[in-house]
Amino acid sequence: MVQAVHRAIHVLRELATATPRLGVTELADRIGVAKPTVHALLRTLESEGMVVQDRETGKYRLGPGLVTLGNAYLDSHELRTRAVTWADLLANQAGAAVWVGILTGSQVLVIHHAFRPGGSVQVLETGASLPWNACALGKAIAAFLPAERRGELLAGELARLTGASIDDPGWLATQLDRARETGYALEEGELTLGDAGIAAPVFDRSGEVVGALGLVGPVERLLAETVRQECAIAVREVARSLSRDLGAPRNAGLRAAG
Amino acid sequence: MVQAVHRAIHVLRELATATPRLGVTELADRIGVAKPTVHALLRTLESEGMVVQDRETGKYRLGPGLVTLGNAYLDSHELRTRAVTWADLLANQAGAAVWVGILTGSQVLVIHHAFRPGGSVQVLETGASLPWNACALGKAIAAFLPAERRGELLAGELARLTGASIDDPGWLATQLDRARETGYALEEGELTLGDAGIAAPVFDRSGEVVGALGLVGPVERLLAETVRQECAIAVREVARSLSRDLGAPRNAGLRAAG
Repeated sequence: MVQAVHRAIHVLRELATATPRLGVTELADRIGVAKPTVHALLRTLESEGMVVQDRETGKYRLGPGLVTLGNAYLDSHELRTRAVTWADLLANQAGAAVWVGILTGSQVLVIHHAFRPGGSVQVLETGASLPWNACALGKAIAAFLPAERRGELLAGELARLTGASIDDPGWLATQLDRARETGYALEEGELTLGDAGIAAPVFDRSGEVVGALGLVGPVERLLAETVRQECAIAVREVARSLSRDLGAPRNAGLRAAG
Repeated sequence: MVQAVHRAIHVLRELATATPRLGVTELADRIGVAKPTVHALLRTLESEGMVVQDRETGKYRLGPGLVTLGNAYLDSHELRTRAVTWADLLANQAGAAVWVGILTGSQVLVIHHAFRPGGSVQVLETGASLPWNACALGKAIAAFLPAERRGELLAGELARLTGASIDDPGWLATQLDRARETGYALEEGELTLGDAGIAAPVFDRSGEVVGALGLVGPVERLLAETVRQECAIAVREVARSLSRDLGAPRNAGLRAAG
């Protein structure tokens, strides 16, 4: 392991938190490293466009070089590349927004967001990081992970974002069992008050779950008795087509389900 | 400067290029560093989620941690935060896509993309990096930079992406003079065959140009005799409102123009 690289990434993570601009002294305190060391790290990161020094205050903030790298990651991700067309299709079919996500640690990273058709203002959620237990994407992925990894997630921190968020491992485990039976997972106001999600797992050629794809929208629209089942079937079908596109075997998901 | 951090970023940049997966040996060759050193860098970057090792091939690719950092940069960027509403307004008004960009080196980084209203499939360009001389955003920014910095850009590499791209510094300089007079810059098929751009500069409270905002769309639609001037006026007005939002003085732009 290379200590300087760890520290440089630590600097970037600190700048990525709530306080977008930090001085050398503040950073040194937060990271627990001497000021001259932090200064050398910052100058190196600045020369690469990864941080920028604010002219007015002399403080540092993240730099545009990170967007270029983040974008290169998204562009190179096979799931995302293949998901774009399927996500558009589902968004148009269901008249709701579609998210595609992967699991990193215990967070779901949204790697694609197809807007709800229609002109209203929507905030792009690509790049958003969500607790796995608070979104349908996370539950759909967790349900089809190997039992051991699933157990780790259930034993880990379970975030509460709203009054409806579920932090009881037993109840979550029951929901995951149910998702394995039906092929899709539900979330109702657990991430954002009033919004719901329906998501299904996506598998790759090894037959392992690599992400999930799902609808997001107002509870009243997505989970109304009349549309709920139709939406769930559409999500499951599109996720299955995407999996086949990625080379998944026809029986992918059965292993985890077994 | 910290050599290990430079090298780690070099590794990430190599993985961000055309070849999305590289092995330790390939990376060592490209960077000109011994294999054990590259291996240590990769393991460190992997432990931080910045690279991922492919299970099948053992090769490395970029990791999801970069998206989180890139997104944190975008979220913390004041120009972008403030531009979202204005960009939506302009997109709806003009019925075309709106891009907001900043200059990094000689490239324009698109930090926001408001889709053209209407349901057709559009590729999100946020994160895209464009040669300054091939897009209206770049010309609008360059026109209002201090003369010295503008001279550096004109003396630097001038990319040719289409037959219409302009790589003659004299001709570009004339266009920049014109942009300073009219308050907006034009591009016609220089970035993408058949597409045009109209962009105006955005200033911050120091009165310096910090980016640009502009319309992008088919030449036939954007530059048709009947709409061209209307679009240009709309772009200029919205860019001016955004500048005022950022605290720019009323006479911002006059300094560079003088």
